[in-house]
Amino acid sequence: MSYGHQEFISPFTWRYGSVQMRQIWSEWHKRWLMRRVWLALAGAQQQAGLVTDEQLADLHSHADEVDITRSLELEKETRHDVMAEIRTFAEQCPVGGGIIHWGATSADITDNVDVMRIREAAGVLILRLEELLLRFAERIEQTATLPVMAYSHIQPAEPTTLGYRLSVYAQDLSHNLVDLKELVGNLKGKGFKGAVGSQASFSEMLQDTGMTAAEMERRAMAFLNLAYFPVATQTYTRQQDLGVTNTLASLASTLHKFGLDFRLMQSPAIGEWSEPFAADQVGSSAMPFKRNPIISENICSLARYIGAMPAVAWENAGQAILERSLDDSANRRLFLPGAFIACDEILLKANKLVTGMTIDETAVKRNMDRYGPFAATERLLMALVAAGADRQQAHEWIRQASMRAWQEVKGGRPNPLIEYLRVEKQINERIDPEQLLTLMDASQYVGTAGQRAIEFASQLKRELAESKPRQAADSS
Amino acid sequence: MSYGHQEFISPFTWRYGSVQMRQIWSEWHKRWLMRRVWLALAGAQQQAGLVTDEQLADLHSHADEVDITRSLELEKETRHDVMAEIRTFAEQCPVGGGIIHWGATSADITDNVDVMRIREAAGVLILRLEELLLRFAERIEQTATLPVMAYSHIQPAEPTTLGYRLSVYAQDLSHNLVDLKELVGNLKGKGFKGAVGSQASFSEMLQDTGMTAAEMERRAMAFLNLAYFPVATQTYTRQQDLGVTNTLASLASTLHKFGLDFRLMQSPAIGEWSEPFAADQVGSSAMPFKRNPIISENICSLARYIGAMPAVAWENAGQAILERSLDDSANRRLFLPGAFIACDEILLKANKLVTGMTIDETAVKRNMDRYGPFAATERLLMALVAAGADRQQAHEWIRQASMRAWQEVKGGRPNPLIEYLRVEKQINERIDPEQLLTLMDASQYVGTAGQRAIEFASQLKRELAESKPRQAADSS
Amino acid sequence: MSYGHQEFISPFTWRYGSVQMRQIWSEWHKRWLMRRVWLALAGAQQQAGLVTDEQLADLHSHADEVDITRSLELEKETRHDVMAEIRTFAEQCPVGGGIIHWGATSADITDNVDVMRIREAAGVLILRLEELLLRFAERIEQTATLPVMAYSHIQPAEPTTLGYRLSVYAQDLSHNLVDLKELVGNLKGKGFKGAVGSQASFSEMLQDTGMTAAEMERRAMAFLNLAYFPVATQTYTRQQDLGVTNTLASLASTLHKFGLDFRLMQSPAIGEWSEPFAADQVGSSAMPFKRNPIISENICSLARYIGAMPAVAWENAGQAILERSLDDSANRRLFLPGAFIACDEILLKANKLVTGMTIDETAVKRNMDRYGPFAATERLLMALVAAGADRQQAHEWIRQASMRAWQEVKGGRPNPLIEYLRVEKQINERIDPEQLLTLMDASQYVGTAGQRAIEFASQLKRELAESKPRQAADSS
Amino acid sequence: MSYGHQEFISPFTWRYGSVQMRQIWSEWHKRWLMRRVWLALAGAQQQAGLVTDEQLADLHSHADEVDITRSLELEKETRHDVMAEIRTFAEQCPVGGGIIHWGATSADITDNVDVMRIREAAGVLILRLEELLLRFAERIEQTATLPVMAYSHIQPAEPTTLGYRLSVYAQDLSHNLVDLKELVGNLKGKGFKGAVGSQASFSEMLQDTGMTAAEMERRAMAFLNLAYFPVATQTYTRQQDLGVTNTLASLASTLHKFGLDFRLMQSPAIGEWSEPFAADQVGSSAMPFKRNPIISENICSLARYIGAMPAVAWENAGQAILERSLDDSANRRLFLPGAFIACDEILLKANKLVTGMTIDETAVKRNMDRYGPFAATERLLMALVAAGADRQQAHEWIRQASMRAWQEVKGGRPNPLIEYLRVEKQINERIDPEQLLTLMDASQYVGTAGQRAIEFASQLKRELAESKPRQAADSS
Repeated sequence: MSYGHQEFISPFTWRYGSVQMRQIWSEWHKRWLMRRVWLALAGAQQQAGLVTDEQLADLHSHADEVDITRSLELEKETRHDVMAEIRTFAEQCPVGGGIIHWGATSADITDNVDVMRIREAAGVLILRLEELLLRFAERIEQTATLPVMAYSHIQPAEPTTLGYRLSVYAQDLSHNLVDLKELVGNLKGKGFKGAVGSQASFSEMLQDTGMTAAEMERRAMAFLNLAYFPVATQTYTRQQDLGVTNTLASLASTLHKFGLDFRLMQSPAIGEWSEPFAADQVGSSAMPFKRNPIISENICSLARYIGAMPAVAWENAGQAILERSLDDSANRRLFLPGAFIACDEILLKANKLVTGMTIDETAVKRNMDRYGPFAATERLLMALVAAGADRQQAHEWIRQASMRAWQEVKGGRPNPLIEYLRVEKQINERIDPEQLLTLMDASQYVGTAGQRAIEFASQLKRELAESKPRQAADSS
Repeated sequence: MSYGHQEFISPFTWRYGSVQMRQIWSEWHKRWLMRRVWLALAGAQQQAGLVTDEQLADLHSHADEVDITRSLELEKETRHDVMAEIRTFAEQCPVGGGIIHWGATSADITDNVDVMRIREAAGVLILRLEELLLRFAERIEQTATLPVMAYSHIQPAEPTTLGYRLSVYAQDLSHNLVDLKELVGNLKGKGFKGAVGSQASFSEMLQDTGMTAAEMERRAMAFLNLAYFPVATQTYTRQQDLGVTNTLASLASTLHKFGLDFRLMQSPAIGEWSEPFAADQVGSSAMPFKRNPIISENICSLARYIGAMPAVAWENAGQAILERSLDDSANRRLFLPGAFIACDEILLKANKLVTGMTIDETAVKRNMDRYGPFAATERLLMALVAAGADRQQAHEWIRQASMRAWQEVKGGRPNPLIEYLRVEKQINERIDPEQLLTLMDASQYVGTAGQRAIEFASQLKRELAESKPRQAADSS
Repeated sequence: MSYGHQEFISPFTWRYGSVQMRQIWSEWHKRWLMRRVWLALAGAQQQAGLVTDEQLADLHSHADEVDITRSLELEKETRHDVMAEIRTFAEQCPVGGGIIHWGATSADITDNVDVMRIREAAGVLILRLEELLLRFAERIEQTATLPVMAYSHIQPAEPTTLGYRLSVYAQDLSHNLVDLKELVGNLKGKGFKGAVGSQASFSEMLQDTGMTAAEMERRAMAFLNLAYFPVATQTYTRQQDLGVTNTLASLASTLHKFGLDFRLMQSPAIGEWSEPFAADQVGSSAMPFKRNPIISENICSLARYIGAMPAVAWENAGQAILERSLDDSANRRLFLPGAFIACDEILLKANKLVTGMTIDETAVKRNMDRYGPFAATERLLMALVAAGADRQQAHEWIRQASMRAWQEVKGGRPNPLIEYLRVEKQINERIDPEQLLTLMDASQYVGTAGQRAIEFASQLKRELAESKPRQAADSS
Repeated sequence: MSYGHQEFISPFTWRYGSVQMRQIWSEWHKRWLMRRVWLALAGAQQQAGLVTDEQLADLHSHADEVDITRSLELEKETRHDVMAEIRTFAEQCPVGGGIIHWGATSADITDNVDVMRIREAAGVLILRLEELLLRFAERIEQTATLPVMAYSHIQPAEPTTLGYRLSVYAQDLSHNLVDLKELVGNLKGKGFKGAVGSQASFSEMLQDTGMTAAEMERRAMAFLNLAYFPVATQTYTRQQDLGVTNTLASLASTLHKFGLDFRLMQSPAIGEWSEPFAADQVGSSAMPFKRNPIISENICSLARYIGAMPAVAWENAGQAILERSLDDSANRRLFLPGAFIACDEILLKANKLVTGMTIDETAVKRNMDRYGPFAATERLLMALVAAGADRQQAHEWIRQASMRAWQEVKGGRPNPLIEYLRVEKQINERIDPEQLLTLMDASQYVGTAGQRAIEFASQLKRELAESKPRQAADSS
């Protein structure tokens, strides 16, 4: 019952994920939820007149006394985990013990429990993601108009703004949030449908009560506040698990991009971003720039693990033979907790990144000075033509200067392009120095990026603010 | 320009998918759509006063003259497919040719085109899926109350109804349909945002026109009737591709389950279903039962291929470095057409199955006779207890009879259980023969399955009927 | 340091895998191996004259005193797990503590440790697999000539023998064994190559010793009895991890087929195989045939999980940027133990199946009686033609009889085909009854299957016997 | 029979892969190989006395007359591609037509053909890979001792040599080559084993000939020069396909790393490598540095596609129900050609890269000047301590200087660290300027990297040279 490092302890137990998320996926919590489901069933059966008030009350009064030790003992005898749990609970309930699980099949309990665990776990992720998006929105607002070099093919291209770049991640995350909320909103339990989904046992049991099996199911699921599939076999459709893993994997892939970009941006070769560095965390004295992006690397690493999980869920769904085959059971014990705990971890890590990331404006400016002028020559060319120059000739003046300037940059020296252009006779006859400086200021060449970043952040904050009170209201 | 079987011709060209779907993914159609996008851009620029009416009219009058031969010639010179296509179009347009692609980057064209192709292709799948669901609804109605043995662990368990079993697939497919429609409803183009997403070139171009780049984009995209992402880099987010492949893969996994179940049900060992068999398709004379479920096998096979595509899209999304990296280009040429054409094929095949499948009621009855009585003893037990028998004893009477009966069944003989029970003195003292027959009729032991199947089918038909007129209205 | 079921405890800690396999992947064992690597390094440095005998002896005498509690305390200070482990070890070694890890980079230790863990874990799997193959060989010998119906498209086709069918799995497993042994034989450590693979620090350190860094590496790795890559970056190539996961995934897929086939064969519809059933494990009294193939289902389930791991290793290998990126670290903590423990479990389970499986000869005969005669008509047709009948006519006689017989079979009654043919005047005029019975005995129609099964099993046993003494010799 | 761009034409037909590789996967070649298999079978049957010399000669004389048009016509009638091909061939052979395919099942033909196609296709890849490795060996020799900055965590770390870095890829590729050759060496056909693997039909046919079915198989496969599995069902084991895709996927992942590294190294931020640039391919005049690494990006893109194929093969292998299920057929038509053609393409592209890549020594030197001095301070520190300085104090002198120098570098200016250290009184009292320069020359700090690169390249060339003549001998 207690495990130490002499044995294999999964990183999901001690390295990754919040305590809260790990507890959701604990045996204790699972068994506690199983008892909730038995209570719900017994509650509906009590309304049908099958269960007495005393029996139900007895169950309620012992429902929190989860006893895994006893249950595992009994499992050795019964070789059946659900049966062992029933007996454990029943032993605690002298009055109501006999009616626990009445008419139900194991999956009536466990499948509803799994959906409740998924709901709770996804709820945690939603809060994390909203928190993360809020951090992003703040960062975007702070940096909406800060010009930075943008890269296509990992080649400096034209400038954009930092806030706009951050909006790219945030927009993807906001879609991931929509998907996650929709997932939670659409989650459905199995209901109470028995061994093959027909409700035959419940129908038999209820035949003289005036309550139908469908009505009993409705009432029991209402106690759990859980929607349910109208049609199910022994289990709820494993398509639902696939939807869960797809949603988490999509989120993971957004964060993988963020992590990979971060690792590049923190490379001194670009050097504009830096992961938060604890005050007491002394970097290498000899190599003051060497700060390994271990948070981002960790995000990428776990994201890949999450990204592999849908393949397992896909196979479970695609091979769910007839009314149920148990070939999903063992891997669901692995991929459901694993995907959620890993997602929890990378969301927490991403939050740490966005909250604590340092923008090195010196490096931003250096890169802009280094590559921006090349991008800005497009505007100069237009101005020269407007000033009467022959387009082909103007193009050649600029090209010559650019080639010479690039040799300097390549050698590690500052970009002299603006100076070269300024002293080029053909150019300064047509464009006065001040205008030249303005034209060559790449940081002005960012189009609508800044403005759209501002709009995006403000829209995002509005949406987050709207969802908060609703949640508060929901839980009240 | 023309390819034959001396070379590799993909099955997607000649074996799988409808002509309609293959054409959507043809070069011709792609280039035709590119011209639509150029027209839309020019249209907005004309409203801004940058393009003359004559230029725009010239473009419109030649937009349908796609000339791949010429374009591929020019591509050899330019080594750039979009540039080659621009020049091909421009050569055809003496008046407006010069303004084609003005201010745009290649991905402003191709990314919007891709979303339009996805929209068309997904539209085809939606129609196929609605058609398939209608077929399912009909089948469900026809078979809603037909009792059949249900299987858990591929073991005969309790009965269900055929219509209920079919509802399991249909319910999953109806969720796949919802997802597919939502996907289409949420599809967004890149818009017109230039090389790094900043709209810098468009802003420059428009600066004296009184129209903003955002407004120009809005108008151009309105011509395409295509929503667009507020934030994009050089491309729309590859998360969208991931969403597309996930949706198709989920659908594929539903059909994989259907195909696998069908293959089992068509095995003579169960033998209740049979794929449609062409009138002139003579089965083996010696082995009249041997009808290979090749349609179902084909569905499973292609479904697996589709199921592997999200992994590619996941990596593209997760490694979409900074403002764009072209490492998605080659594989998108493969997985987008591949996933859609394969999905088209398996939906067509599934439709063929559902429409033409034969239900062998002899086999259904045989299986029910063979396994149903065992399941029905649960009801007999309850009746015996109600009639005053000791539960333990009654259990033993039934167990003895069941064991003996099972030996007969195992040997390939009819199930004698009802007869054994009928002549068992302890039982017939308590239950009269007619009541026994009723109790032992497993086909009555189907709970609410039939009724819920009927409700489900009728609900499904309602939804399909509602969506039809809306579509008609949409396209008017 | 100790974890219970209030938290998430991975099934790999308490449900799946042997104790032996779990311990290989424990923190304790990892840290114990790290100390082996430090000893090996110090040993080589001692030979170079850099380390004194006393220092080395001090290290040796404390090498087994792994103290995870202390190490985790120190990790909180240093935020670096390897540094914390060095300090823990150093605290225990007053004389030699200062020279631990001299000149090394963390990955010089951890990467060699990982390969040693993989070697040990793969060694366990090899023993399991050899054991399993021996069980298969025995089963094959027992059943080499037992005729059973074979199935193509899950349709009864022609007969084969049970031993031959089992040889199919065993042949695949024997290839998996070859691959696994080859994997182990080819495993290579990183060696001692420092931070970027250049051995610069070791070269510096050794410059006045007369020993080269290459020589020091050779000696240290010899202490570990571990081959090493001539070229490595900060780490050994992650292609090696990919090879590991591919090998395990291939093995898993063989067992997935075995598990899936078993589940079908245990379905009463076919019913020829049965999982071992504990003496005290009472099946359902009402449904004596209902024995859920939970071992096979578990194998399939875990096999899928293992099958998903290569995707993670593929990405690590394909994105191992320049001289190392840490984006593999977190997921390697998951997929390496996970894949090995899951493989361990399914090999143990498969062994249980092969050892304890029941062959139900009644069901075998029933299926042969039911479907065999149809297959045997091919031989009758040849005999009729040989006896002077017109081929077309003879074909028709048989077809008519087969169709009538199939109706009986479909209805759940014994196959009357032989009787129908026996009384068919056209046939019994040409073939005497005894010959007819012989011809129609499908169990004779198994070609070389039985003989090849015998040869295969005997070859397999020879190979296993040859590998045993070699292993014994190796470890001596 | 002929397809154009009005329809979907796969990039594998017109964009990717060599003509040679595409032809291997053409229908024409497949059918030509089918005829080889029929000839081999007939050849063995002639030796058994079942087929006459004239019949065999007739088959041989028409074997090259593949007629796909006719075959597809007949397929419309027969709905069976192999049957249609038999009839097409038979129509051409008036004497021997009747004995084509005698005793065989379709998979006896097609499965052997597939292995022959895989063998040919893998043979092409082997040649490509050997060629690529030779190019690598040359590059490594040229650059074995050229010092370049090495990166861990995408952070400049210590120097290595370019040749050593290239050896990393080449070592992985040489392992991929070993695997590919081993794959080819181990490829096995199905042999001739009939519908379920028992050879029953061949045994019947041969019963009066004195030749066994096993001997007939041996002779027929010898004609094809193809090893074969001793045990097979209707097909050869799909584990073999999994092995094929795993091998190709591993190769793809090596090239993905190479492509990704190349894209980073070509980024002007590092800027040391450059893809070959055609003489007439004019880069952007304004942005002379902007050279998009489209070859590398293409490699990464296709590599991901290849990397997804094992998942399909895994499912086929793991779900190969009993003696064969056709659920592998459709996807094998896709993933086998696809994986090979894509591998062909990326090997050709990688060859282009290695052959034509430009090393920008200016950039190499700039990066070394920029980051190398920081790495070199480690040696200075040791020298200072050796010269009597207090270690802590010396460390502080260096740290101060490094911090100041880094500010300069970050601002885009040359690294002044050596100068700072030279003028530092505490240091120049202990270390004379010349020694300081030597110590601070990071390019000397490359350990054994250069030497091992040379050894590796020379070993690689030896192995490639040894394999060449052997291949020549093999084919003689």
